Amino acid sequence: MQPSITPVILCGGSGTRLWPRSRATKPKPFLPLLGSATLFEATIARAAPEHGFAAPIVVTGAAHVDHVEAQLGTMPEASIIVEPVARNTAAAIALAAFRLPDDAIMLVCPSDHHIADPAAFRAAANRAAALAAEGFLVSFGIEAKSPETGFGYLERGEPIAHDGFRVARFVEKPDRARAEAFVAGGRHAWNGGIFAFRVGTFLAELMAHRPAIHAAARAAVAAGQADGRRFHPGAAEFDGFKPESVDYAVMENTGQAAMVPVDMGWSDIGSWDALHAALPHDAEGNSVQGEAELVDCHNVLVSSDGPRVSVIGLQDVIVVVDGNEVLVTSRTGTQLVGKLKGASQQ
Amino acid sequence: MQPSITPVILCGGSGTRLWPRSRATKPKPFLPLLGSATLFEATIARAAPEHGFAAPIVVTGAAHVDHVEAQLGTMPEASIIVEPVARNTAAAIALAAFRLPDDAIMLVCPSDHHIADPAAFRAAANRAAALAAEGFLVSFGIEAKSPETGFGYLERGEPIAHDGFRVARFVEKPDRARAEAFVAGGRHAWNGGIFAFRVGTFLAELMAHRPAIHAAARAAVAAGQADGRRFHPGAAEFDGFKPESVDYAVMENTGQAAMVPVDMGWSDIGSWDALHAALPHDAEGNSVQGEAELVDCHNVLVSSDGPRVSVIGLQDVIVVVDGNEVLVTSRTGTQLVGKLKGASQQ
Repeated sequence: MQPSITPVILCGGSGTRLWPRSRATKPKPFLPLLGSATLFEATIARAAPEHGFAAPIVVTGAAHVDHVEAQLGTMPEASIIVEPVARNTAAAIALAAFRLPDDAIMLVCPSDHHIADPAAFRAAANRAAALAAEGFLVSFGIEAKSPETGFGYLERGEPIAHDGFRVARFVEKPDRARAEAFVAGGRHAWNGGIFAFRVGTFLAELMAHRPAIHAAARAAVAAGQADGRRFHPGAAEFDGFKPESVDYAVMENTGQAAMVPVDMGWSDIGSWDALHAALPHDAEGNSVQGEAELVDCHNVLVSSDGPRVSVIGLQDVIVVVDGNEVLVTSRTGTQLVGKLKGASQQ
Repeated sequence: MQPSITPVILCGGSGTRLWPRSRATKPKPFLPLLGSATLFEATIARAAPEHGFAAPIVVTGAAHVDHVEAQLGTMPEASIIVEPVARNTAAAIALAAFRLPDDAIMLVCPSDHHIADPAAFRAAANRAAALAAEGFLVSFGIEAKSPETGFGYLERGEPIAHDGFRVARFVEKPDRARAEAFVAGGRHAWNGGIFAFRVGTFLAELMAHRPAIHAAARAAVAAGQADGRRFHPGAAEFDGFKPESVDYAVMENTGQAAMVPVDMGWSDIGSWDALHAALPHDAEGNSVQGEAELVDCHNVLVSSDGPRVSVIGLQDVIVVVDGNEVLVTSRTGTQLVGKLKGASQQ
């Protein structure tokens, strides 16, 4: 009998890569980028109680808590941990862990990713939870469909139960040639930042490898104050450590790192180009959100919050209209969006 | 002693080719496309009384007369002929001719062209007027800088006085190969629709070749009513003829067609691509009107009436923002702008 799984939804980030739709005041998780639901709403729905999951814990900051409340809806068992300050994922997950019993299984999920096949996600979550219950720290190993150089990769080691593998090696953002070899070789998967941990195991490994984070999170939770379904950890206590990702702080140091391979139509929607790829296309490869007329266009994405957009004779171009900002970029140019004045000065 | 020259400024046209900046309610002549002055204002200023010209006659329609009044300013001697209906240029010019004495010299000017060198324009106007006084119907023969297929061409014939030539032949919109031969040969010039006529000569030739236009214009002026500086020809009388351009109706039929060659930085601003060519550029060939940030761009035009436009990684692209419309087009695509839904449904 498997314990029920508690989704721990991480809601941080500034989302400059999808500027101007994504703004500091309304970042990526809270936007309906791929239909009527926002990425946050879809994340909650994917692991909702109706699918057998426990009520979620959302970890977010004061800047986003109103968006979280509005989009979480009426879910009385859900809770929201309001971080005093953003300190990367190891500490965020630790705050949630200290709010749970040792034998609970946490399913850590970013809130700004797209998953086209939620059933495949849930099947992988159950396999990962089963491995976590056996003492593994489990990453989702997302099938690498293309030689992305912006992702971390997990190399498969020895097979274990539940169609899982030990992680032989973590590889941060490889160069192009290496990424191509990974895809061709079939032994590497993308690290999508989705994890299953038994709470007790996670905290023990955190204490072993990053005692300062462990101590600060424990003290902050001990000093915290509940306010309805919100929980405010102590701000003074949540300090005195180096902010690190859970990958650096724990996963790359533990001897119990495992992975479950999964193919679930995943995208981090990490750029306008990635969003275009995740959207439905017409026969010419064009996608339109809002009112648009496209003439002699191929692989063009138009996303407008109001004005009509007319495009003639372009290929591989993305046009975004949002309030007082218009973005027009080549597909490769989407990597530079976060560096634009508009995106960085907001 | 040369008679003074009366500018006859033609203000018609729908201007769909510069949509969405140009709209049915505010077409091309009345927009400040190339600086602080509109094309209409620049046309008036080029042939203003301070340069020795007589006060202008503007021929326009009811839809545009308010723009004309607003942009003509306080010029008490100027007059405005409000056409009951647009009937092409031969009839429009005839209305003006019937409001002038037979020995006046008309300088017919479209109001939606750009001329970078007004002094060269005025020098050519004086030469053309001198030929007109001698009985020629004179076209400006604009130096053909490139093999345009959208213009009419004038072929030089026998040299005459004032550095002019008889017109050997009128050639309507040639194909590309022929246009290239014209540019290479040096004997052809663009027909820019600028003419100098002695009124009596023009009306005599119009009577000879298009008596219906002559009769209708004469009757409409006879039945017209003045209203301050406006003059309203009789609507009932201004009918019963086939609308034709002055080129077709008169110039191609008369035995007195002449041309004065002129190189004056002329552009008909007939597309967004043509406007881009007429604007100042930076070292990368980019031009910006409004607020914009361009990254890795070459030969890009941005023209925005408000929103900031950010462009990344594009070449030979034009971006126009105007109110509730956004246009993004390749340079060659600018030829199709008038066929867009937005441009044709307005």
